[in-house]
Formats: sequence, C-alpha cells, structure tokens
Amino acid sequence: MPVGTQGTVKAMSPDRLSEIGAEIVLSNTYHLYLRPGHRIVDELGGLHAFMGWQGPILTDSGGFQIYSLGSLRKLSEEGVTFTSHLDGSTHFFRPEDAVAIQEALGADIIMCLDECTSYPSSREETRTSMELTLSWARRCKQAVTREDQALFGIVQGGMYGDLRRQSAERTVDLDFPGYAVGGLSVGEAKGLMYEMAATVLDVLPSDRPRYIMGVGTPEDLVVLSGLGADMFDCVMPTRNARNGTLFTGTGKIVIKNERYARDKNPIDETCGCYACANFSRGYLRHLFMAHEILSSTLNTIHNLSYYLSLMGKIREAIVADRYATFQRNFLSSTEGEKQDDAD
Amino acid sequence: MPVGTQGTVKAMSPDRLSEIGAEIVLSNTYHLYLRPGHRIVDELGGLHAFMGWQGPILTDSGGFQIYSLGSLRKLSEEGVTFTSHLDGSTHFFRPEDAVAIQEALGADIIMCLDECTSYPSSREETRTSMELTLSWARRCKQAVTREDQALFGIVQGGMYGDLRRQSAERTVDLDFPGYAVGGLSVGEAKGLMYEMAATVLDVLPSDRPRYIMGVGTPEDLVVLSGLGADMFDCVMPTRNARNGTLFTGTGKIVIKNERYARDKNPIDETCGCYACANFSRGYLRHLFMAHEILSSTLNTIHNLSYYLSLMGKIREAIVADRYATFQRNFLSSTEGEKQDDAD
Repeated sequence: MPVGTQGTVKAMSPDRLSEIGAEIVLSNTYHLYLRPGHRIVDELGGLHAFMGWQGPILTDSGGFQIYSLGSLRKLSEEGVTFTSHLDGSTHFFRPEDAVAIQEALGADIIMCLDECTSYPSSREETRTSMELTLSWARRCKQAVTREDQALFGIVQGGMYGDLRRQSAERTVDLDFPGYAVGGLSVGEAKGLMYEMAATVLDVLPSDRPRYIMGVGTPEDLVVLSGLGADMFDCVMPTRNARNGTLFTGTGKIVIKNERYARDKNPIDETCGCYACANFSRGYLRHLFMAHEILSSTLNTIHNLSYYLSLMGKIREAIVADRYATFQRNFLSSTEGEKQDDAD
Repeated sequence: MPVGTQGTVKAMSPDRLSEIGAEIVLSNTYHLYLRPGHRIVDELGGLHAFMGWQGPILTDSGGFQIYSLGSLRKLSEEGVTFTSHLDGSTHFFRPEDAVAIQEALGADIIMCLDECTSYPSSREETRTSMELTLSWARRCKQAVTREDQALFGIVQGGMYGDLRRQSAERTVDLDFPGYAVGGLSVGEAKGLMYEMAATVLDVLPSDRPRYIMGVGTPEDLVVLSGLGADMFDCVMPTRNARNGTLFTGTGKIVIKNERYARDKNPIDETCGCYACANFSRGYLRHLFMAHEILSSTLNTIHNLSYYLSLMGKIREAIVADRYATFQRNFLSSTEGEKQDDAD
C-alpha cells in the first residue's frame, strides 16, 4: 500500500491516488502524534476527512519509528520513552496509548505496539524482545474501545526460526483479525529475510490478512506473495521516485542520467500512467535536474502505478493458478533488478 | 497567465492547469536556454510537446532575467553578455539570438529582447536604455523566420511619462501583433506604476493585445484592466502559494498561523477549486508545517484558481459594461488587501 508518513502520500493528492488504483494508504502514528497531534486530527473529523481519503487507511503503531530513533528511545516493560525528532520533547508511549492514539486518528486497520528487534541480536535479546511484543499485543487488544477498527497483531522473533514460529503461534493464540510480520528488512541478507517470512507465513492462518511490514523491492513482493503474504507497505516506490529512480518492466532507470536528456520515450512504454502517457524521459530528466516539484509528483505517479500494477499481476496469477510460472518468469527477467549505471 | 520558469508551472501538472481553466502559460527563455537548452527542447518536439501543454504558450525574451542578474551582466549596443547563475559560464545574447532561441522553443507568442531600465534611473540613462530597446525591437522583427509565432514589442521608458509615450509610439510604428509594457513594478510607488501604465495603454492600439509584464496583485489586475490592459504575468499567485500565503475573497491568509490548526473550513468558501472542495485549512496548515510537497500543489491550485476567477470577473464586468462599479466595489472591499497578522 502507498505509505503516507505525514497524513499524505508524499507528492500525491487523493484524486491521483484513486486515479492510479490505490485502494488503501498507510499513515504513521508517530508522525501524526507529534504533528499535528492526534487530537487535532480527531477534531478535524479523523484521518479520512483530514486527508480527504475515503478509502481504507492503516496506521502503524509508531513502534518502528520509535525503534528507528535509536539512542533517543528507552524501553521498559511498561512502555517506551522517546525524544521527538522535531523539537526534542520527551514522550512516553504505552501499548494502551498506541491504541488510544490510533483510535483518535480513526484508521480502518490499526496495529499493536511492538518492539522491532535490532539486527543482529543475540538469541536471548531476541527472546526478551519477542516476549515484550507479545505482552504488549495482549495489552493492546485489551485497550481497544472502538469496534469499527481492525487491530492487527505483529509477529517478531528476529532472525531465529524457532522464535519466529513461537511468536507467530502465540500471536495467533491471541486471535487478531489480521497479522503482520515485523522486524524484517532491517539489514539481514535477502535469503534470511525470505526464510524468516516463510517460517511465519506457514504458521499464520490463511483466512486472515498476512502483512509483511516495510517490504520491499518488486522481487520481494513476488517472492513473498508466493509464500502467502497478502499485504505490504514500503517507502521504496515513493522515495525512489523523489530520488529519480524509476521502475520499469525492463529494470530500474536513473532519470538524471545524461543518456535520457534527448530521450523522447516515456519511462515505460507498457505503462499507462499519467506520467507515461504525457511526458518524455527527456522532460522528466529536465524536471529532476531543475528540482521542480512536478518531478516528484510525476515520478511518484509512475512508481506507484508500477507497484500497483505488479500487485495486480500477482493477484491475477494466483487466481489463474499459474503462480509458479509467473514467479519464475518474473525472477528470470531483468525486471526490478537491472540498475542503470551511474553516469 | 500562470508562469512556468523551467518549462512547468511550479507544482502544477498540465491536467491541473486545464482543470482550473488556465488558457495560456509563460515559460522563461533564459532558464530554458541554460537548462535543458533550447536545442534539446526543439529535439523533443518544442515546448508544447516537451511540457505536455497543448494550449497557448508565451516565452519571454530572457531580458528581464538577465536584467535581474545585476552585476553578472554587461550591455552593449550589439547585445548583452551575462554569467549563468547555474554554472558561472559566460553567454552572449543578441536580439537575433533571443528570437532564434524562442523560435527553437516554439511558443505561440514570443517577445523582443529589451532592456529593463533600473529604478531609479536618470532621464538620460532611461532615454539611452529606451533607444536600445527600440533598436533591438527592430532587429528582433527582422530576425524572425517563423510565421506561426506572434512577436510582441515591449515598451520601456522608465518612470518618465514623455519617454513612456515616445517609446509606445515608436514601438507601435514598428507594427507588432501585440504590445507589452515592461519595466514596471521594479520598486516604484504603486501610484507611479499606474500612471506609467495609463500613459502607455493610452497610446497602444486597442485592437492589439496589451500586456503588462510582471504584474501583479489582485488590485493591480483590476486597476490596470480598467486602464485597458488585456494580459498579465506574475509569479505572485504561485510563489505566494509555496510560501503559504493564500488569496481569498476576504483578503489574504497566512496558512501557517496557529489560528488555522483546528479550522475545518476551506481556504475560501466561495471557491470551487480542488483544494477548497476537499481540504480544511487545518489540513493545509499541517501540510505546510510538515513541508509536504502536496502543500505547494494544493496552495498553487487555489491561488491560480483565485487569479483566473478574478480575471473571469473582470472580463464579465467589461462585457456587461459595468466596469466602473465592479472596480469601485472591488477596491472598497478588503479583497486582496487584508493581510493576516503574523503570529
């Protein structure tokens, strides 16, 4: 799903998101809690009204952003103390607060507060962290007061298969309407990430949404969907767009490259998005070099269209019962892997 | 007309421009000459194809940007030598080059190279500068090789009414399909600007477009249209938008002000633009404070809608033969004048 940290998918208006077929967007609780504050979002009618987005919204718990603060955070069984990256103010977040804040924000899917285990971590650290996440998951579930939001549980367990399995089983025992896999794509090798995801996906019930958090590349989406994943979120399409890296059916292109200065072709001839239908690579290179805001918007429209189209193909292949062939063809093509040389 | 310095109206895609009713856009020859270069724009099919804008385009001559370089430029009868603000490279522009470059860019309306007289300037300096502009206007006209572009002449003459009148008469003698008034809004008092514009508009033929360059506020548009002006260009609506200053029927608002944090109202209840139809001031304030790209886009949609709507009202009042009443009502209202106090 497109990721919108600050209550908008960066550089995208809601009508553009609808136009490219986005169905659900993610907003970050941590960012919205700090600015403008969940109470203001609530006063302004909740996230849907605030953002002008009537489709489904998922809010994360803030756990991952707080984890990313590194030394600016301090954990205890009770909750996490952290320092705002905006103004240095100190905040204390208990699992109950994460739920209350997400209830005020008003998304359709909300997430349990979890601890994302660092990589690498010892088995003992990982076990302790996993137990904390499980304890917090129980408290989050008990803290729920709204019945119109789906609270998802989050599986942790670092890079230890048995802990992953245990975390998955015990999270499922708590009975959530959907399950997420956290703590992946934090620096580990790709093969290890797939192995951990496979272990967890194997345990999670197939009649509930299975959501791999913070992942990933086009290849990741294809592989993990093949393993049973249903949902993903990642800044990759939007952040790459703003940095000028564009996904195509024949690999990534770096639009600032000199070779595109006179290129009359669209980013991807097989893509029907607004950017590909109306603009040349030469123009998009120019907008990027000139630091024009429109560069970010057009590139984001394209990259999100690419990702949404890929997920559409994945769904079609599943429905048509030809996933193995689809995956083999995709992975043996250059798609999503070939990278422009820097000039 | 909306102004697009780098081959795009900042933060706006062409479909948005059409949506808000923009009919013509301006591009800056100076910027496009330096980056990506007029030859590349030509190779990519000319400005219309390059920008994806099928409506009319006007290119300025580059004269005003070169004038704005101050000490980075050196004038002679033959042309102007200037230093690129991008890379410090030295360039020499003759009037013939300004035409050739604009022919390569391929706009519908192109402008003579002129010298914009500094303010204040002595009568003697102003006369010399005016003569240079007239001489360059003759050379520009002779340099034209395309018949599908309208080359406009530019009236200068600083803040001296007799020189303005003389410049207008002698430019009209050269017989252009349209006339612009340059060198206004360069630091002089508002009354003096109106006086100079009135003097020139009085001389220019009413059967040709009369274009006041680089102007202005909503009040300026109303007053100068009353004096016979037909066209304007200004960065005011787009630049103000990016800085968070928004035009409304009851004055300007500074969206970052704390007072808008919980404001559920649209920017302007009487405005039907996409930003006003879908978002609260509270959300727009949040986007601005969070430095979101969408802030620039939504604010620009609104401010350009405001300007285009104002020009629509001006045209209606002219057609209905009630301009004096319209102007009196507009100027006695707070519109365009009332300014938020800074918090």
